[in-house]
Amino acid sequence: MLRRMVLAVAVSVGMSAPLKAADDLVTTYELENGMQVVVVEDHRAPVVMHMVWYKAGSADEQPGVSGIAHFLEHLMFKGTDTMESGEFSSTVAANGGRDNAFTSYDVTAYHQRVASDRLELMMRMESDRMVNLRIGEEEILTEREVIIEERNQRVENNPGALFREQLTAAQYLNHRYGIPVIGWRHEMEALDMDDALSFYETYYAPNNAILIVAGDVEPEDVKALADQYYGVIPANPDLPPRLRPSEPPQSSARRMVFYDARVAQPYVTRSYLAPERNSGDQRKAAALTLLAELLGGGQTSVLSQKLQFETKQSVYAGSWYRGTSLDATTFNLIMVPAPGIGMQEAEDAMDAAVAEFMAEGVDAAHLDRLKMQLRASQVYERDSVESVANRYGRGLTSGLTIADIQEWPEILQSITSEDIMAAAEEVFDLRTSVTGWLMTEEQEVSQ
Amino acid sequence: MLRRMVLAVAVSVGMSAPLKAADDLVTTYELENGMQVVVVEDHRAPVVMHMVWYKAGSADEQPGVSGIAHFLEHLMFKGTDTMESGEFSSTVAANGGRDNAFTSYDVTAYHQRVASDRLELMMRMESDRMVNLRIGEEEILTEREVIIEERNQRVENNPGALFREQLTAAQYLNHRYGIPVIGWRHEMEALDMDDALSFYETYYAPNNAILIVAGDVEPEDVKALADQYYGVIPANPDLPPRLRPSEPPQSSARRMVFYDARVAQPYVTRSYLAPERNSGDQRKAAALTLLAELLGGGQTSVLSQKLQFETKQSVYAGSWYRGTSLDATTFNLIMVPAPGIGMQEAEDAMDAAVAEFMAEGVDAAHLDRLKMQLRASQVYERDSVESVANRYGRGLTSGLTIADIQEWPEILQSITSEDIMAAAEEVFDLRTSVTGWLMTEEQEVSQ
Repeated sequence: MLRRMVLAVAVSVGMSAPLKAADDLVTTYELENGMQVVVVEDHRAPVVMHMVWYKAGSADEQPGVSGIAHFLEHLMFKGTDTMESGEFSSTVAANGGRDNAFTSYDVTAYHQRVASDRLELMMRMESDRMVNLRIGEEEILTEREVIIEERNQRVENNPGALFREQLTAAQYLNHRYGIPVIGWRHEMEALDMDDALSFYETYYAPNNAILIVAGDVEPEDVKALADQYYGVIPANPDLPPRLRPSEPPQSSARRMVFYDARVAQPYVTRSYLAPERNSGDQRKAAALTLLAELLGGGQTSVLSQKLQFETKQSVYAGSWYRGTSLDATTFNLIMVPAPGIGMQEAEDAMDAAVAEFMAEGVDAAHLDRLKMQLRASQVYERDSVESVANRYGRGLTSGLTIADIQEWPEILQSITSEDIMAAAEEVFDLRTSVTGWLMTEEQEVSQ
Repeated sequence: MLRRMVLAVAVSVGMSAPLKAADDLVTTYELENGMQVVVVEDHRAPVVMHMVWYKAGSADEQPGVSGIAHFLEHLMFKGTDTMESGEFSSTVAANGGRDNAFTSYDVTAYHQRVASDRLELMMRMESDRMVNLRIGEEEILTEREVIIEERNQRVENNPGALFREQLTAAQYLNHRYGIPVIGWRHEMEALDMDDALSFYETYYAPNNAILIVAGDVEPEDVKALADQYYGVIPANPDLPPRLRPSEPPQSSARRMVFYDARVAQPYVTRSYLAPERNSGDQRKAAALTLLAELLGGGQTSVLSQKLQFETKQSVYAGSWYRGTSLDATTFNLIMVPAPGIGMQEAEDAMDAAVAEFMAEGVDAAHLDRLKMQLRASQVYERDSVESVANRYGRGLTSGLTIADIQEWPEILQSITSEDIMAAAEEVFDLRTSVTGWLMTEEQEVSQ
């Protein structure tokens, strides 16, 4: 309800005077050791986000040690030469802040939100653990149990997550995006100190990191502190180039059925290999972003309209695409059949709806509405300094430049119906696709 | 015809006095630097096979440089400090011998067949290129063209080979057996000197090699020569352990269709992940070896009988399994439909034939015949010193011991119908399978 109101406002504003996403107040520079610094100013409240983004994620792991990037993220909260295990987070909390971290395919990031006057403390602690991490053998063993339990909860106990793992592994023939970020369980069980330190020593270095400070700060103050704390850390001269194995031609549509007795609601999904946003070359990704919205971005989308409201064969249908990625990504479709609709019937209906869209083309009014909504959400996103900081962090660790990130909203606005249909023609290539059915054996029998 | 005669002889001999595969005349020892030496004596003719097997194949490659093991195999025929490019092979030929080399997932091997008195020359040259290889940049470029052309001929111009590449990539979710030995074309195009030397320096060392000398030689003479030529080469202290990424649970049957306008004869194939021969634990692999023969090892096999002769739905049907592998291998089925039989019908018929076999169980007389044939072919195989040498080389580089290799024939003989049915129950798990259809779009329309 809130979201709808926001959009309504956006549209009404847009009608009278087109909304323009003003440039973010961003300053960027590089320390002598190669560390990139990005300052996003927002002086409305005396708080600051302090983030360090390492350009290393699970897709940078060596074969056989899947999960090590994420395991190291956990271990980073253990001690250093001068801090006890757990002291990092407790210090942040004692100073009224909150801290967190996450690992994905392309990046591992650490961030804290604190009062602006605590920024120096954050930099002191974060720069300390960039080089002085000390982990005990006992901590390796206990924290390994923690990540395995995390896998149990998030994946093993979740048929949909297990299904997605198998789909993703089938999607990539060569690239490590096929391997789950959290790791294959049997490999997680063998992760050890050497694996963790090897990843740490290779990738945790200032010339592989981006410092983002967002909030009530002045760029020159941040620069002075960054020089003092991060600038003194030597670059890693042996940092490997970030060149991952790419995909060979994918020439065979793949299909799979995943049966799990715990599945309540079966569904059909399909992913196609899709281009990502590349520096200076974002138009195709922008067209796919709009395609995903048009086709399956909510109740007014083509798939929803056709499958939920017209034929009523579906209780949910959608599509999504995430273009911010270092390497080739996917465009995805989903169709959750209504009761009594079989899996093949559901898949055929999904295909028919997409085929109709391809024949009918883009509804110009629909595209205009979506562009307006995108513009509005970009404007309102700027109210959250954390969102802005994340946008820069994600973009910069995915191979984009500050200019690419800032041009993105205008590129989206410039995309035409023809661009979208051309991108759709290209991406809907069954030879690069994986189609999956999630269901129980019982559901199959009952159809 | 010849083969049938040979088997007829074997059976008649077997009837009167059961054939027993005598132990091969094998002597083995290890040089001080860790190089294993295997001597197979055969004094019937004054010739000798000289082979060096490196325990490194395409599955030992780093991500992104697929094909480097095979590329290096080509480059090994370039010069050393003391030999010109091409001189190795021309010297072998000038001495009346022939030489060759091959690369597979687990091994790269070099061998020469020469008169026994040329053994020392072979050792001098082979030990020389184990450490003194010198490659020019120009040679990298020209030889890279050669391997790409080899790929063109063997793979790109062959729809069946392209199809198998996609199937194999879908079979393995984590292990590098999913990557073709010859390499992905786009990665081959970027292979360079550093990649080749890195593989060479890591894996080409006496402690990662097996010397096999088979033929008209005395073990002590071989030992003296091996000490002189190979024994002086230092071991590589940094040889990495041979531990590859293994598969996570495979929980979704995969399916794919590969369309290629060049396909004349469509077919259906299915592979299941299957256990390999392991040291001290070969019974399951032995049962699968017999299962493959029973089910699809020729005109008298179950699939042939049911699908070619009874229902006439197939022009060829078969199964195969290759247990000699360092890591998990596959069990394979194929069904080539007769004219007028559609692909789904063909797959259903193949499944039905296997299901009938599972219900009917093993025909005892059939199993006895197969065991007799296996015994016979093992006996006759010993007539070829090259085959014996290859058997040891393949086995030893796949993680087996001399004892495992010698016990294998008796293990095969000891397998019961129950063992075979239990192995079949276990291996026919659709969740670990990939089913593929090779066809043209036209063939699809015409059905």
